[in-house]
Amino acid sequence: MAKPLILVTNDDGITAPGLRNLIRYLNGFGDIVVVAPDSPQSGKGHAITVDDTLFLNKMPVKDGATKEYSCSGTPADCVKLALRELLDRKPDLCVSGINHGSNASINVIYSGTMSAAIEAGIEGIPAIGLSLCDYAWEADFGPAETAIKQIVGKSLEKGIPEGVILNVNIPKASEDGLKGIKVCRQARANWREKFDKRQSPSGKDYYWLTGEFELLDNGEDTDEWALAQNYISVVPTQFDLTAYHAIQQLNSWDF
Amino acid sequence: MAKPLILVTNDDGITAPGLRNLIRYLNGFGDIVVVAPDSPQSGKGHAITVDDTLFLNKMPVKDGATKEYSCSGTPADCVKLALRELLDRKPDLCVSGINHGSNASINVIYSGTMSAAIEAGIEGIPAIGLSLCDYAWEADFGPAETAIKQIVGKSLEKGIPEGVILNVNIPKASEDGLKGIKVCRQARANWREKFDKRQSPSGKDYYWLTGEFELLDNGEDTDEWALAQNYISVVPTQFDLTAYHAIQQLNSWDF
Repeated sequence: MAKPLILVTNDDGITAPGLRNLIRYLNGFGDIVVVAPDSPQSGKGHAITVDDTLFLNKMPVKDGATKEYSCSGTPADCVKLALRELLDRKPDLCVSGINHGSNASINVIYSGTMSAAIEAGIEGIPAIGLSLCDYAWEADFGPAETAIKQIVGKSLEKGIPEGVILNVNIPKASEDGLKGIKVCRQARANWREKFDKRQSPSGKDYYWLTGEFELLDNGEDTDEWALAQNYISVVPTQFDLTAYHAIQQLNSWDF
Repeated sequence: MAKPLILVTNDDGITAPGLRNLIRYLNGFGDIVVVAPDSPQSGKGHAITVDDTLFLNKMPVKDGATKEYSCSGTPADCVKLALRELLDRKPDLCVSGINHGSNASINVIYSGTMSAAIEAGIEGIPAIGLSLCDYAWEADFGPAETAIKQIVGKSLEKGIPEGVILNVNIPKASEDGLKGIKVCRQARANWREKFDKRQSPSGKDYYWLTGEFELLDNGEDTDEWALAQNYISVVPTQFDLTAYHAIQQLNSWDF
């Protein structure tokens, strides 16, 4: 039987420590093909490049990968190019990350890491997005290694349900500090933006987006609750955005 | 009582005929503030600008709007800037569009139009994304006017359910050809990409993303089915991406 084919990508770019560590953790699970952005793509959501050219560059292979390419596009572009232009068969798994920073709760909507995993999911490929709740470039990914291997192993062994992508977030903690893995729902939250307004040398106003995360949900079944207790959160995530519960109410509008 | 405050945006840019027609259709419903991208932002998904500056420009008011601004960012940036920097109270409604092209089924994931509406929805603002299934810049929006006014009117009168955003798609048809409005679920579909591979004058390979829409769902309760029958589709859409049905199965993985 052929070894599992694992497509690895991220949104922080092909040189990001989170990605390089992930490739090392995946050694032994299968053949690893890396197609990752050539520059950071944080906050790119599910952007795709429809009005511009895309470049692919074959890169030196490192950390046990079979093949590596960098791509000028978004994380979703990386997955599309990998599937259509680079791989001769459908991958058995797509793993995106490890993101430098949380993609829990509402962050999933803005996340390039998760958009790559969701893109794979749309194509019927089992997919996992991994994020460490530490934005530092020098973040310590080591404590998460055992849990990541466990999640990847279970995903290959049991099969991720059809149409579902795993959104995995790992708290910043020592390995001993990690309490385990919890299946959760996405917490209700938003960002309370503050725009930092400045003036250019020529007198033109401009803004930098900053903000504070605002948790609106105290449920003990949420990813934010699990992370606050030092659990790794796993949220099954879907790309069918239909709010089924609202269909009946809208039908009563009587168009 | 104050007139309703309506925030209008889109992803095709502030000069797009779809937006200009929408503003005219909304005259009479309330005070209209327009904050729209200064350039086309199609396919931007839920991108936000975290690593670059943002510019806002006050624009001449046209078509019955109260205020108009163009923004250098993405559709989601437009909504964030409008809420935090420009409006002195929370809008009663956000309408995004009218997009030149379909945002039905899986297109919702890639859609800048819908990302703006979803961003408003996250902020607790009733929100509607409108799209006409015609990519032409000269598309005829006229046949949709009556239905759009009906949907906006009902939304203000009845209230869109909390956490729900309406994804409205309008078939390309004459007004007589439109059969009515149907509440639907998002059809299962994907894009079968074809990358057009070319060579630059200096001999470097590059790609253009192209592709064909592939419908994987024959359900008669879907948006694609409704549109094919010349109905206007309304899909209640949510930003809680949790696949609740999969939680039990993942719990059986026994981490």
